[in-house]
Amino acid sequence: MSPERQLENLLHEEIPLTRALGIRATAYDGRCLVLSAPLSPNINHKSTAFGGSLYSVAVSCGWGLLHLKLAEAGLHRHIVIQESSIRYLRPVSGDMRATCCVEDAALERFMRALHKHDRARLELAVSVSHDDRPAVEFSGRYVVHG
Amino acid sequence: MSPERQLENLLHEEIPLTRALGIRATAYDGRCLVLSAPLSPNINHKSTAFGGSLYSVAVSCGWGLLHLKLAEAGLHRHIVIQESSIRYLRPVSGDMRATCCVEDAALERFMRALHKHDRARLELAVSVSHDDRPAVEFSGRYVVHG
Repeated sequence: MSPERQLENLLHEEIPLTRALGIRATAYDGRCLVLSAPLSPNINHKSTAFGGSLYSVAVSCGWGLLHLKLAEAGLHRHIVIQESSIRYLRPVSGDMRATCCVEDAALERFMRALHKHDRARLELAVSVSHDDRPAVEFSGRYVVHG
Repeated sequence: MSPERQLENLLHEEIPLTRALGIRATAYDGRCLVLSAPLSPNINHKSTAFGGSLYSVAVSCGWGLLHLKLAEAGLHRHIVIQESSIRYLRPVSGDMRATCCVEDAALERFMRALHKHDRARLELAVSVSHDDRPAVEFSGRYVVHG
């Protein structure tokens, strides 16, 4: 099974709301993860995506990327979001697409800290776009512990 | 119908995800709004509330309070979240309760700006608690326009 399908199944099993949101793991190339979601379950009174749905897709994208990098390193740890900020640049009137990438250097620092202290933090940026235009900027601090 | 029931119906109709989240409008005294939600539809892999659900309940609480204050002033405007930040202080292992209050002075400044420019912004803080202990601090900037 592809890493995308494995992650999608994991998200749907472990965080049932991600199934209600219609989240799909669309692409993963070892550095960037793309999650997508349709508008219909996430629609609001203005026929655009609810801010809480956009946040949920973004926070899941960072979580998913970190999960994949830990799994590749043979590590099975708890990942929790500690704090985050989000800016809504424009309304999303259709399907949404969240992308999160991690730089090798940041990931290496994080892995060293995790091996040393059995606990480490990583800041991840997620961009949510619609029709190839950026719509939401998210930044989250994730904590991983044993 | 009480303002709480009206708001709850409006949230469930206009933002269907709030129904999936199980959001209820629990109390409103003209200054503070309390929304609550059960753990079960919002649970994650650690048997605590998913960060995206906690965010969604918080952002809906600020939106709902602003909607009620505008309705009391006879105004029916669009309310959108522009940016926000959230801090997760401790896991939520049961029902969650979000509280948002607005000070008279801040509301009066906001209403004056809205009458003058037909557009205004308001910062609202929302606290989400579980078992009467604060678990999440949210701060959001909402924009209201005609």
